[in-house]
Amino acid sequence: MSTVSTTNDPKSPAPMRPWAEDLPNSTRVYIGADDPRAAGDPNIRVPVREIALDPEAGEKPVRVYDTAGPLDHDVRDGLPKIRESWVAKRKADKTPTQLWYARKGIITEEMRFVAIRENVAPEFVRDEIARGRAIIPANINHLEAEPMIIGRNFLVKINSNIGNSAVTSSIEEEVEKLRWSTRWGADTVMDLSTGKNIHETREWIVRNSPVPIGTVPIYQCLEKVNGKVEDLTIDLFLETLEEQAKQGVDYFTIHAGVRLAYVPLTANRVTGIVSRGGSILAKWCLHHHQENFLYTHFDRICKLMAKYDVAFSLGDGLRPGCTADANDAAQFGELETLGELTTIAWEHDCQVMIEGPGHVPMHLIQENMDRQLKVCHEAPFYTLGPLVTDIAPGYDHITSAIGAAMIGSMGTAMLCYVTPKEHLGLPNRDDVKTGVITYKIAAHAADLAKGHPGARDRDDALSRARFAFRWQDQFNLSLDPVTARSFHDETLPADGAKTSHFCSMCGPHFCSMKLTGDVRAEVERQEGLKAKAAEFKAVGGALYQ
Amino acid sequence: MSTVSTTNDPKSPAPMRPWAEDLPNSTRVYIGADDPRAAGDPNIRVPVREIALDPEAGEKPVRVYDTAGPLDHDVRDGLPKIRESWVAKRKADKTPTQLWYARKGIITEEMRFVAIRENVAPEFVRDEIARGRAIIPANINHLEAEPMIIGRNFLVKINSNIGNSAVTSSIEEEVEKLRWSTRWGADTVMDLSTGKNIHETREWIVRNSPVPIGTVPIYQCLEKVNGKVEDLTIDLFLETLEEQAKQGVDYFTIHAGVRLAYVPLTANRVTGIVSRGGSILAKWCLHHHQENFLYTHFDRICKLMAKYDVAFSLGDGLRPGCTADANDAAQFGELETLGELTTIAWEHDCQVMIEGPGHVPMHLIQENMDRQLKVCHEAPFYTLGPLVTDIAPGYDHITSAIGAAMIGSMGTAMLCYVTPKEHLGLPNRDDVKTGVITYKIAAHAADLAKGHPGARDRDDALSRARFAFRWQDQFNLSLDPVTARSFHDETLPADGAKTSHFCSMCGPHFCSMKLTGDVRAEVERQEGLKAKAAEFKAVGGALYQ
Repeated sequence: MSTVSTTNDPKSPAPMRPWAEDLPNSTRVYIGADDPRAAGDPNIRVPVREIALDPEAGEKPVRVYDTAGPLDHDVRDGLPKIRESWVAKRKADKTPTQLWYARKGIITEEMRFVAIRENVAPEFVRDEIARGRAIIPANINHLEAEPMIIGRNFLVKINSNIGNSAVTSSIEEEVEKLRWSTRWGADTVMDLSTGKNIHETREWIVRNSPVPIGTVPIYQCLEKVNGKVEDLTIDLFLETLEEQAKQGVDYFTIHAGVRLAYVPLTANRVTGIVSRGGSILAKWCLHHHQENFLYTHFDRICKLMAKYDVAFSLGDGLRPGCTADANDAAQFGELETLGELTTIAWEHDCQVMIEGPGHVPMHLIQENMDRQLKVCHEAPFYTLGPLVTDIAPGYDHITSAIGAAMIGSMGTAMLCYVTPKEHLGLPNRDDVKTGVITYKIAAHAADLAKGHPGARDRDDALSRARFAFRWQDQFNLSLDPVTARSFHDETLPADGAKTSHFCSMCGPHFCSMKLTGDVRAEVERQEGLKAKAAEFKAVGGALYQ
Repeated sequence: MSTVSTTNDPKSPAPMRPWAEDLPNSTRVYIGADDPRAAGDPNIRVPVREIALDPEAGEKPVRVYDTAGPLDHDVRDGLPKIRESWVAKRKADKTPTQLWYARKGIITEEMRFVAIRENVAPEFVRDEIARGRAIIPANINHLEAEPMIIGRNFLVKINSNIGNSAVTSSIEEEVEKLRWSTRWGADTVMDLSTGKNIHETREWIVRNSPVPIGTVPIYQCLEKVNGKVEDLTIDLFLETLEEQAKQGVDYFTIHAGVRLAYVPLTANRVTGIVSRGGSILAKWCLHHHQENFLYTHFDRICKLMAKYDVAFSLGDGLRPGCTADANDAAQFGELETLGELTTIAWEHDCQVMIEGPGHVPMHLIQENMDRQLKVCHEAPFYTLGPLVTDIAPGYDHITSAIGAAMIGSMGTAMLCYVTPKEHLGLPNRDDVKTGVITYKIAAHAADLAKGHPGARDRDDALSRARFAFRWQDQFNLSLDPVTARSFHDETLPADGAKTSHFCSMCGPHFCSMKLTGDVRAEVERQEGLKAKAAEFKAVGGALYQ
C-alpha cells in the first residue's frame, strides 16, 4: 500500500495532483482555539479551507467547509487520533452514544466541534441530537474522525460510495477514492466492498478517514456464508457487526424494515427489489418463510450498536428502482416499519437516520419527505438521489441531482451521491469527482433554498469576482477551479485574457458586464448631477454666492 | 461550405458520426399519412425515431419525438420545403399568423402537424394558440421547418444556442452545431452570431434547419452602427427585422421591456445587467435619457412581425445575473411591462412568448412562474435555466438543469439550455451535446411531473430492459446510447457481458436484480401452492377422487 496514485481508468492515468494544485490560492486553517465554544480543548481544531482573493479586490478571504482531513500524512500511519482523549474519559459509561449524552444534558467535545463547524451554539447541537433530529456518527473506535452532524437544521451533507467488487479494483484504489472523495467535499463515505480483503480494506479506510465511514454489514455476512442467503443467521450478523464496530465504522445500513409481508408487494413492480441488502433479506424471508431476522432481533442489534455508538442508517431495502415503482405500498410499508424501529433504537439511546429513495418523479418527491418526517418522528432522512427520470444512463448524476436538490431543500439531511456510471459500471476516479461535485451543487442549492445563514457568502463573493472580471478569483472560488480555468483557457489561453474585461463568449466589444459598468457610471453621474442640482437649490440658486 | 465535420476543440477532433451510429437500432419513421388529423395532406409527415428492441423481448418498438430533420441531404441544397404549398395558398391573407388563423377558427396545416406530433386533437392545438397559451413559431419564409409548438399544455421544449462571436468559430461550425443540436433533441435553435458574416451564417442556418430559428436582432443592429450604442434607431432596427424576417427567422428576442425607469434599479445589484441586449438598451436609454425606442415604437414592430408571422420572444434584459439579484424590483418591473406588451402584440395577432431568468435560488423559483402567468396573461414562459447557485462554473449545465426541471414542472414551456462552458467560453461540440442532453433530462423530468400522457413510456421500457438485463435495449433507449455503452464497456468490455445477468457494479454473485428474479419466482411458486391448496379444498379434499 502506498500513496502513489493509481486508477482503473486507462483514459485518466495522471497521478492525483497535490491538494494545493487542485485548489489554488487555498490554505488549510484551523479554527476553534480561541472560540469559547471549544471550552479550551486543544483538540477542538475545526478545519476550514480559506480561499485568498486578489489583494486589489479589497475583499476578505472566503472560508469554506472542508472535509479533506489532514493534508500531509503517510497512509501507513493513519490519521492523528484527535478524539483519543475525549473517548478515553468516557470509559465508565456503558452507553457512550452522543444521544445518551445529549439526553443527559451533556455537551460532548464532538458537539462543540460541530457547533464551531456549523457556526451555531453547542446547546443547539445538543438539543437537536437529544430530539433525534440530528446525529453525529462517531464510533468510539474511530478516533481519527473530525466530527460532523447530519440533521435538517444544519448544512446538507453528501455521501460518496467507494468499495471494490468481485470484478475490479484494489485496496489502494479504494483508499485513494476516499481521499479523492473528501478532497472534493464528501461528508461521509460508505465502504460498499463485496470482494476479497473486505476486512483489510476497511481497516485502511477507517484509519485514514477524517469523515464518518458507513458500511452495509450484510454484504460481509454473505461473503462468510459463501453467498448462500438462506444460511444467514442473527448470530453471524451480530458477530460481523461487532467485528466492524471494533474497527470503528460509524454507521451501519441495516435493512430491518424488509418485513416478510412486504415482499409480495414487490412482485408486480417494473423493477422489483433493487437494493442489494433488500433483495438478500427478501430472499431469506421467503426461503424460510419467516420474519426478517434483523427485525425480530432488532433489540440485540441496538444493544451492540449502543456499546460503540455506531449510528443506524435504517436501510430502504424496498426502495423503488424506477420511477414507475415510486411511492408504492412496498416502499411506504417499509418506511412505516423504519419509523417503528427508530423508536426502539432511541429507547436504546442509539442514533438513527433513515435511508430513502431512489427513483422518484418530481411530483412525488414532496410526499416522500412529508411521510418520512411524520412516520419516522423527524429522524434525519438520507436519500439516494432521487433520480427523476430513467432515460439517461450515463447522466444519472444529473437526473439524480435534480431530485437531490429538491428533497434537500425540503429537509433531507444527507444526499447519497450518484456518479455518471450509475447502472452501468464501477466509477473510476473521474466519475467519483464528478459525482461528488454534482452533489455539492445539489446540497449547496438546498442550503441556499433553506436560507442557511452564511450559505450565500461564497455565491456572492464569486458573483462579485465575476462582475469585476477577477477571473482567477472566480476560478478559485468555484467548486472545481482547475476545470473552470481550463474551460476558460480552451478559447482564450493567453494569460492576459484572465485580467481582460471580456471572455470568448461575447468578445471584446460586446460584453454585457462591461456595458453594465458604463451604465452604473452613468447612473452615478446623473445622481451626482441631481445631488449637485439639489445642493444648488438648497443654497437658493445663488451661483456666485 | 461542406458537410465535412469540423470542431473548435482540439481534444475532440473526431468527425461527427452518422446519425445511425449515434443512435443504434433507431430508424426514422414518418407518421400522419393515414391519420385523420392530417386530413389527407401528403406534406403532413411527422418524423419520429423508432427504437427497435431485442426481438426476444416481445416488446413493441419505442417511438420518440425527433427534431433531427431529414437525415440525408446536402447542406448546399437546404432542406425540402415542406411548408411551401401551405404558405402559398395563404398569400391573400394580410396577417398570416398562426394566432390570426386560430382566432378565426381555422386549423392550419401546422396545427395538424403539431397535433399528431403531440398526440392531441387539432382543435385543442388551435384553441391553445387562440388563447395565447401556446405558439407555433413558423415564419412564412421558413418553409423547411417541421412545425412544433411551445406551450405549457404540451411537451416541454428546449432551445440550444449557436452563433459565432468575434473571437472564434466559423459558418461551417455553426451549421454543424445546428445539426448536432437537433440530433440530440434541441426543439429550437437560437443563432446568436455577433461576428462577421452574420447574414450569410444565418441564411445557411435557416435553409438547413428543421426547427424554428430564433435571433436577437439588436446584435446585428449594433454591428451596423459599429458598436456605437447611441447610434441605434428604430428605423435601423425595423430594417434589420425585415432583413431577418425575409430570411425566415421564426422568433425574435426583443428587449422592449427595458424601460428607462427600471435602469437605475439595477445600479446596486451585485452583477448589474447581464443580458447583452438588456445592457445595450439600458445604455441607449441612459445616453439619450429617453424611453427605450423598442417600447415607444412597439406597434410598428408588431406590424412588421405579423406580416411574416415572426413570433415575439419578449426578452428579459434585466434578468438577474446571480442568485443575489433574483426576483428584484428591476426584474419584476420589466416582467410587468412584458405583460403589457403581450397584450399589444396580441392585438396585432402576433404570437408571443416571454423570456425568464437566469439565476434564481430554488425557493424563489415558484414566484417567477406565478407572476409570469399572472402578469403575462398565460403567454408561454421561456426560461434560461434558472441556475440555482453561482459557485459551480464549469458545471452550470447542472446548476441550471435543477432550476430548469423545477420551473418546467411548474409550467414553463421552453427551457434555454446552458452548457458546461457557460460564463467561461464558447461551447464546442461536446459542450453543445452535453448541454442539449442535460436539458432533455430537465424537460423530460418536467413532462413526467406534469403527467403528460405517454411521457412515461420510454422510462418504463428502459426500466423493463434494465430489469431483464437487456443491456443493448437499455443503451439504445437512453438519451445517449454510445456513451452509456462505453461506460459499461470500460469495466466489462467483453461482448458476452452485454447479455450477462450482472454488471461490474456488484459482480456475478451479488446482483439485486437477479435476486429479485428469484424472489418473484418464489412468490409465484407460493401463490401457486396456495391456489393448488384452494383447488384441493374446493374439490372436498378428496385426493384420490
